[in-house]
Amino acid sequence: MNETEFGYIKWLQKRLKYSPDVLVGSGDDAAVVKIGKDSQLYVTTDTIVEGIDFYLKSAEPEQIGYKSIAISISDLAAMGGGFSHVYALLSFSAPKRLFKSEFTRPLYSGIAQICKKFNVQLIGGDISSTAGSLTITSTLFGVGNAIKPILRSGAQAGDAILVTGKLGGSILGKHLNFTPRLKEATLLAKKYQINSMIDISDGLLADLNHILEASKTGALIDAVNIPINPELYMGNPKILNRQSTILRHALTDGEDFELLFTAPMKDAVRIIRDKDLKKTGVSIIGLIQKQKGIFLCNTKGKISKVKPEGYTHF
Amino acid sequence: MNETEFGYIKWLQKRLKYSPDVLVGSGDDAAVVKIGKDSQLYVTTDTIVEGIDFYLKSAEPEQIGYKSIAISISDLAAMGGGFSHVYALLSFSAPKRLFKSEFTRPLYSGIAQICKKFNVQLIGGDISSTAGSLTITSTLFGVGNAIKPILRSGAQAGDAILVTGKLGGSILGKHLNFTPRLKEATLLAKKYQINSMIDISDGLLADLNHILEASKTGALIDAVNIPINPELYMGNPKILNRQSTILRHALTDGEDFELLFTAPMKDAVRIIRDKDLKKTGVSIIGLIQKQKGIFLCNTKGKISKVKPEGYTHF
Repeated sequence: MNETEFGYIKWLQKRLKYSPDVLVGSGDDAAVVKIGKDSQLYVTTDTIVEGIDFYLKSAEPEQIGYKSIAISISDLAAMGGGFSHVYALLSFSAPKRLFKSEFTRPLYSGIAQICKKFNVQLIGGDISSTAGSLTITSTLFGVGNAIKPILRSGAQAGDAILVTGKLGGSILGKHLNFTPRLKEATLLAKKYQINSMIDISDGLLADLNHILEASKTGALIDAVNIPINPELYMGNPKILNRQSTILRHALTDGEDFELLFTAPMKDAVRIIRDKDLKKTGVSIIGLIQKQKGIFLCNTKGKISKVKPEGYTHF
Repeated sequence: MNETEFGYIKWLQKRLKYSPDVLVGSGDDAAVVKIGKDSQLYVTTDTIVEGIDFYLKSAEPEQIGYKSIAISISDLAAMGGGFSHVYALLSFSAPKRLFKSEFTRPLYSGIAQICKKFNVQLIGGDISSTAGSLTITSTLFGVGNAIKPILRSGAQAGDAILVTGKLGGSILGKHLNFTPRLKEATLLAKKYQINSMIDISDGLLADLNHILEASKTGALIDAVNIPINPELYMGNPKILNRQSTILRHALTDGEDFELLFTAPMKDAVRIIRDKDLKKTGVSIIGLIQKQKGIFLCNTKGKISKVKPEGYTHF
């Protein structure tokens, strides 16, 4: 969920007051409402558009279907996971020429694959034709019982900054076949004190900045500790011929869909040693500090302030 | 919610089994899941596309915003209303040229208007740019406590067929400024035995056919009793110069967004006399019968089988 560019939610919020059952309104990875006595409903919606989020020439229909649900699972994960049930609705606007089984069958197959993998129940949807681009909107609902959402706003000065997996693989196609970190988020929230969390959709620096702004803190990150996707070194030599370029991809490329989170150092050192997280891998990449802004310690040990660059939708 | 054209949900359902907490899966106006002990979550999603569901030349941005939420409220209403809370998520895919305040301000204003009117809390959304058409997907969820969903499949032979309001106004612009019948649905479900219900989005005959197919019944409807929007008689004389043409609009035009429902005759006769429904108006237009198909008694008393024509998305 990302609406900062449009600013519309803020405008509307002034006009529409929330009742107390809205535990988390717009502005985090998912909204959270209280249902009944001890259930919480986590909801998130994401739209992917042909020509923006994927290209029909380079993405398989199966990957498009997979991605449409996976990005929303990633948003739910970033709230801390722990759901007893997850439901999905899908809305398609498609040009008529795509309504042939060569396209729809693998598209649905990709949807079925991700739903099975994460036990997501697809309970409805809507179909429209369009003269424009293929557009898919997914809305996911996670139901939790007495679980506490992990927000962007909880980072504390002194927290370690951690990230799952490896970064920078998006341009190599990872954005079409990534594994949302729902299992990892559930484990982290259950076993450790996690103060803030977000998924990396806009880019490491940009999403870190979302945490920092919401938490009114700053950060120091260490270039040496950024976990870089090793395939980047084997990538296109034209783009990826320099260490600095590779680091830049890891810092600013959108759609890595890894978890970026902060935790007290005593938890952080246990997290990076957790056997159940070994396969995914978790790295400590820096520290939350009182001084605002993002400071990067480069490979030569020089510290400088960096701009929270990343993918902006407009 | 309408996915019959694509058939994708059926295909997927074979591959994805529902757990017992899914009280109503895809195929009705909304899906219903059980949350906690005695709460039900009703969810529906709808997409409107520029050039299909509205035209930027003839619809005001305010009307587009209003419609985007109103159509989903209408779907929730068709399940029987009675919600303690209603929440909404909105996803926009918009061409960059529309990102100017002359367009977005009235668009949001229309959204705020319908949300206030129906006490809908907008708790999130997503924005994408697109090279194609303006596309808005709304997802609404209503929370109910121990209320029973009214399905399309509950019609019984002998039931009266009823409809709220007047039909055929869609071409006169009603599809952009209609009032979803949430209040009426809540009242009906509370006070009377309502066996089946749907909202008229595809057209009276087409939506009646959805009830009949789900309920494995047929219907006899009486042309004389179809409540026709009086403005149709004052409409474009080229289109609306004949009684038969006017009736055809009332029977087949999509997006009237009135409630079409069935009830035992003892309830039906009380419903049409209910003072609280007087302003909206409710008419008995026919009867559910065992014989399959839709039979229309025309103004001259001649009965013939009619096709369930209406708006088809493809």
